[in-house]
Amino acid sequence: MAPTMDTTAPTVDIKEMHEEAHPMKGGDDLNSYSQNSCYQRGVIDAAKSVIIEAVTRNLDLENNLSTFDPSKPFRIADFGCSTGPNTFFAAKNIVEAVGQKYGSLQEKTLQPEFHVFFNDHVNNDFNILFRSLPQNREYFAAGVPGSFYTRVFPKASLHFAHCSYALHWLSKVPKEIQDKNSPAFNKGRIHYTGTEKHVVKAYFGQFQKDMIAFLKARAQEIVGGGLMVIQIPGLPSGEVLFSRTGAGMLHSLLGSSLMDLVDLGVISEESVDSFNLPQYHPSIEELEMVIEMNNSFTLEKVGALNHPMKNLPFDVQMTSLQVRAIMEGILTDQFGEKMLDLLFEIYTKKLQENYNVFDKEIRRDADLFLVLKRKNN
Amino acid sequence: MAPTMDTTAPTVDIKEMHEEAHPMKGGDDLNSYSQNSCYQRGVIDAAKSVIIEAVTRNLDLENNLSTFDPSKPFRIADFGCSTGPNTFFAAKNIVEAVGQKYGSLQEKTLQPEFHVFFNDHVNNDFNILFRSLPQNREYFAAGVPGSFYTRVFPKASLHFAHCSYALHWLSKVPKEIQDKNSPAFNKGRIHYTGTEKHVVKAYFGQFQKDMIAFLKARAQEIVGGGLMVIQIPGLPSGEVLFSRTGAGMLHSLLGSSLMDLVDLGVISEESVDSFNLPQYHPSIEELEMVIEMNNSFTLEKVGALNHPMKNLPFDVQMTSLQVRAIMEGILTDQFGEKMLDLLFEIYTKKLQENYNVFDKEIRRDADLFLVLKRKNN
Repeated sequence: MAPTMDTTAPTVDIKEMHEEAHPMKGGDDLNSYSQNSCYQRGVIDAAKSVIIEAVTRNLDLENNLSTFDPSKPFRIADFGCSTGPNTFFAAKNIVEAVGQKYGSLQEKTLQPEFHVFFNDHVNNDFNILFRSLPQNREYFAAGVPGSFYTRVFPKASLHFAHCSYALHWLSKVPKEIQDKNSPAFNKGRIHYTGTEKHVVKAYFGQFQKDMIAFLKARAQEIVGGGLMVIQIPGLPSGEVLFSRTGAGMLHSLLGSSLMDLVDLGVISEESVDSFNLPQYHPSIEELEMVIEMNNSFTLEKVGALNHPMKNLPFDVQMTSLQVRAIMEGILTDQFGEKMLDLLFEIYTKKLQENYNVFDKEIRRDADLFLVLKRKNN
Repeated sequence: MAPTMDTTAPTVDIKEMHEEAHPMKGGDDLNSYSQNSCYQRGVIDAAKSVIIEAVTRNLDLENNLSTFDPSKPFRIADFGCSTGPNTFFAAKNIVEAVGQKYGSLQEKTLQPEFHVFFNDHVNNDFNILFRSLPQNREYFAAGVPGSFYTRVFPKASLHFAHCSYALHWLSKVPKEIQDKNSPAFNKGRIHYTGTEKHVVKAYFGQFQKDMIAFLKARAQEIVGGGLMVIQIPGLPSGEVLFSRTGAGMLHSLLGSSLMDLVDLGVISEESVDSFNLPQYHPSIEELEMVIEMNNSFTLEKVGALNHPMKNLPFDVQMTSLQVRAIMEGILTDQFGEKMLDLLFEIYTKKLQENYNVFDKEIRRDADLFLVLKRKNN
């Protein structure tokens, strides 16, 4: 019998927080919209190159035609797919790259049929995902509900795994952060800055636990020789303080905006003390360490995505809207809906005050990518 | 490359019509509720025996251990799953029966891991399905959106297919039925009775086309030696007139209730003439014929489910509520919502008037089942 599934709902509502992958709906600054979509497109194009290169260089079909038998389906999974459309771009890119690779084999073979599995938390809106599936797709599609920190596929059933901008969401806020008696109690802040050693250690501890669970599950699910491409927002190389990165500054200013609401008597200090973002932005070294500990994958390539859109000037309004779209769900759960407008009014002001810092610092955010290959035990 | 998917939405909203598989929500007759759940339970238990017997007698693992290699996942699909819970009972029954069969092999083997795919039309509520998945299930779950009259899985990827109370829903109403110039124009009725030869011929023609499409798709998807268990409401053996079966009478009285609304000036005659139920209840002989035409499956067993609940007395209120739950969506689409209460008031009266006929005739409905085995080409 297959192991009994662990379908316990995690503390964090992943669905709410994956909103960052959705097309923006609010706001009317057309210029910013197109800028945003250009940025997205830039990231997607850069990610496409990573996929193509991974398949071309690292997917060894030729010497593993029993594992990658083209008369059987080639199975692809996107972990943390949200509701599209980015997951569909990824699926298309992977299917095309693998198809080309089969086509380029010395000994001519059939093309396999592709089965693409879209995975996300059970609270994800799979109805929207399914209704948005591209009509002219060249693969069979399936949805897989469940936390990717647990097993969600049978063993050795996947040939290619993909996970983009999802693994920085922790399965939960580390306990110590919210424990008044712990040295890691994160008073007056909503995330780590990198300065408070105990806090960042607790966050890293949770990230490490989650990554270990993720890699352990994927190691069972992916065939020997199978690939996994991961994208994750991370700490830029050589940078030690998260608070000096774009994302770190955004979170830090959101925390201080919440503390302003405490000063104004709108929310309680306790409510801010007990609120923390379940996110961790790892460094390349930290990722390498966890992958080595897991010992089931070779790290074929690691780096930061390079896309020209990184050099656009900082846009205060757009950034404020984006952060609101991402955080609105989690903020409402903790503080209620009423304070949102005032919060983001204060927040936008703080972004404006820090325009010069952001315009310089924002480029230090790193869109990390990793290409892993499942070892042949 | 896999073939481009046909994701064209069918004319008929399958989701609306699969409501019959849902637990009843309206009404407050507790006695009828428990009676209904007893009936359902009776059907489910009878269906369980069919599954167990099919696996025990017809699933030849022993001589096909390369196809049914227990180190690889055993893949099961339920076609027309709706939102549960019946699909979960079926999945559990199949997994348990197959697990026992592996356990009983002379040469002891591993147990395979099970991957269960829940298929229904893209408009099905997969969110509810996913959130209702049993917590302690012994299989990995996936949802597959798409009409089962098209390919929805890669070739030779399924070991066991199941389809219960779904195949009697046609992909569309046959054209001739709604064509004023055709001899099959179905004036003043909403379904076939069996008397009007042209009408029933058009309905059977559509059923045949749909079944051919269904079997053709499944023949590609199911491995040689793999099984398919189908349940479908059908014509009782030896019975030629659909209108003399329980379902036929229910539909016929619904049609005459609609015509009463025409006489009352509530709806137009044209709107009834252009409304027809996309359903066909085949005979065993018709099913055998289509399976033979397809020529990819052997028919291992066919019969009618026998369950003690068939002999319960006819319940007018309960039946009226059930028919309303099933038909409300499709009726609202055609006639609007306003006429529903009056329609079912008239309908209930007609059921009452026919109490004696129903109490005798309703038992002539046949819950047909078929056990098919995919031929080894």
